[in-house]
Amino acid sequence: MKRPFNFAPGPAMLPEPVLTRIQSELLDYQGLGFSILEAGHRGPQVAEIMRSLKARIRSLLKVPDNYDILFCQGGGRMQFSMVPMNLLGAGTLSTYIITGAWSKAAAKEALRFGRVQTAYSGSGTRAPANEELEVLPESSYCAYCDNETIHGVEFPATPMLTDAPDVPLVADMSSNFMTRPVDVSRFGLIWAAAQKNFGIAGLSIVILRRDLLGLATAEVPTLLNYGVYSRTESVPNTPPVFQLYVANLMAEWIENEGGLEKLNARALVRASQLYTVIAELPDTYVSHVAEGSRSRVNVVFRLRDEALTSVFVKEAAAAGFINLAGHRSVGGIRASMYNAMPIEGAVKLADFMRDFAVRHPAKTKIVVPA
Amino acid sequence: MKRPFNFAPGPAMLPEPVLTRIQSELLDYQGLGFSILEAGHRGPQVAEIMRSLKARIRSLLKVPDNYDILFCQGGGRMQFSMVPMNLLGAGTLSTYIITGAWSKAAAKEALRFGRVQTAYSGSGTRAPANEELEVLPESSYCAYCDNETIHGVEFPATPMLTDAPDVPLVADMSSNFMTRPVDVSRFGLIWAAAQKNFGIAGLSIVILRRDLLGLATAEVPTLLNYGVYSRTESVPNTPPVFQLYVANLMAEWIENEGGLEKLNARALVRASQLYTVIAELPDTYVSHVAEGSRSRVNVVFRLRDEALTSVFVKEAAAAGFINLAGHRSVGGIRASMYNAMPIEGAVKLADFMRDFAVRHPAKTKIVVPA
Repeated sequence: MKRPFNFAPGPAMLPEPVLTRIQSELLDYQGLGFSILEAGHRGPQVAEIMRSLKARIRSLLKVPDNYDILFCQGGGRMQFSMVPMNLLGAGTLSTYIITGAWSKAAAKEALRFGRVQTAYSGSGTRAPANEELEVLPESSYCAYCDNETIHGVEFPATPMLTDAPDVPLVADMSSNFMTRPVDVSRFGLIWAAAQKNFGIAGLSIVILRRDLLGLATAEVPTLLNYGVYSRTESVPNTPPVFQLYVANLMAEWIENEGGLEKLNARALVRASQLYTVIAELPDTYVSHVAEGSRSRVNVVFRLRDEALTSVFVKEAAAAGFINLAGHRSVGGIRASMYNAMPIEGAVKLADFMRDFAVRHPAKTKIVVPA
Repeated sequence: MKRPFNFAPGPAMLPEPVLTRIQSELLDYQGLGFSILEAGHRGPQVAEIMRSLKARIRSLLKVPDNYDILFCQGGGRMQFSMVPMNLLGAGTLSTYIITGAWSKAAAKEALRFGRVQTAYSGSGTRAPANEELEVLPESSYCAYCDNETIHGVEFPATPMLTDAPDVPLVADMSSNFMTRPVDVSRFGLIWAAAQKNFGIAGLSIVILRRDLLGLATAEVPTLLNYGVYSRTESVPNTPPVFQLYVANLMAEWIENEGGLEKLNARALVRASQLYTVIAELPDTYVSHVAEGSRSRVNVVFRLRDEALTSVFVKEAAAAGFINLAGHRSVGGIRASMYNAMPIEGAVKLADFMRDFAVRHPAKTKIVVPA
């Protein structure tokens, strides 16, 4: 059975060795005669998985000692609530940098808990320069989305809050977590849902500077309080054991692949395959994302002839490139290429795009200014 | 490889056919060439799993049409928060029936959100009679735990709020969900974490009378609002796909086994094996749970000679009966026997208990009154 190249935005492709490993030990974990699905969350097997997973994240991302690594459920939208509920503290103001759908949704959720200012509000086509960011020093934190999955906008580098350097920076790294090295010490908090680059749906990873713990009030539900996860080593109750197990296998796989520098290089190669075709064939394809803000992991583009969008998705699927439709809110095409996508997938999709352009010649030519 | 009998309180044993099915299709779901772990949450495969799972729950439990079936993350402790945050409405008072550790923890969490009265407060040895329950009609709901996993106390029948029949009854059925038929129409809300009788950790099932939707205020985080799950068909964001898939396989397995009457009969046979030995050998074993409140799924008992507790756990494990230690808060022994435990497991554990009593004769004889 040939595996298709799965360009889904998440849940997404997993590396075949990870899948094979899960399958091989599914009925008998480490020769114990039971499945990891049946292992008690306070037993030695799960404790070892969690210890190993934390150690691997700490090593891969070089997480400093004064940061906790926490495991939560509920995905990104739960973090949209947990961030203000935990970090506002006695303050009432938070700041959001809006670069697309997810940062916008995060800012909207924060309004339930306090006042929200926008440090920058874009239309999903680029990341702002540091000079464009307006952050008040009294803001409890400044949140942004490092990679906008729907719009395909990625920050080329960690933003700097030059006006308010002491305001903790909070990053949603759901779709580019573990795809490049990050200087964790620049952040107050980094969070990511696992189902794109680091496993499967049902797990979020939170990396939190420890001095930001303890700000939650008594009205915060127990399971929305980061302090509870910190105190209980992320076992406030039964954690999502299988997700932790898969994430640990992913972390091991990343180590085996050579770490984050290697994965970043691979992501850049994959993305450049597609951005090159888009640039080559302006009569057929167009990207609305500014150069310098183009995502390495979600290549979002449109067909000049919108009527060809569904044809493209259908023909691609028939050729073994699945899940290329853009998000239902924006349409177009989105090729999500996370850690598990082989470079071959991007190369072959680029070939397909060239072939598609020949088979569906543009009705009108675009004049590209010299 | 012989599988041990796993008496873990949850995560717990899964039926072997369910595990084998997961394993067999792990790399290739329905011949599509990708894993269910890689399937998009808005794609046709996951939609079909969710449709099928809901339909099976509705059919197995005969859920009336005016009830929603919702899927949440976060386990029981998340429901401890969600119940008051959603059901208090304009009211400020909730009522809890305390029969053990879990109902006590639920009541404690409810204090974050309003006033709490106890309708009954026991010491974890029995379920109250209906006449003992004191519920004020102005209470927004009355919550109880249908089976106290730690103390082994189970309600023999659904309690009746004779003083306040209009107060919605809320049941925590985490450890006995899908183990016996239930008249859902008696409840305002039933919730259960999946990892005992219905799958794996990371999924909770909520069955909610639809007129109780819409009471949550704007301060309730999006993912803690039942209304959001209802409106989005439990896809407010990426749901825990693998857990839903396993729960659907469990539901199918329950159907194949003959449904809830059959599973209840099996649970009664299993439990009676152990309670019979305890009654037979009062010099060695003792149950502190009153007859009539003894759990069908968590048989909790102590060794008269406390020094033998760890010997019992160790010898049992060596004989293939694993995870028999009582909860760390109460000690003793707990044999959790959920849907996947074969009757053979209970019969053989009973034999082991008799044998253990012979090998470790009591130092003092208990005089049982005639």
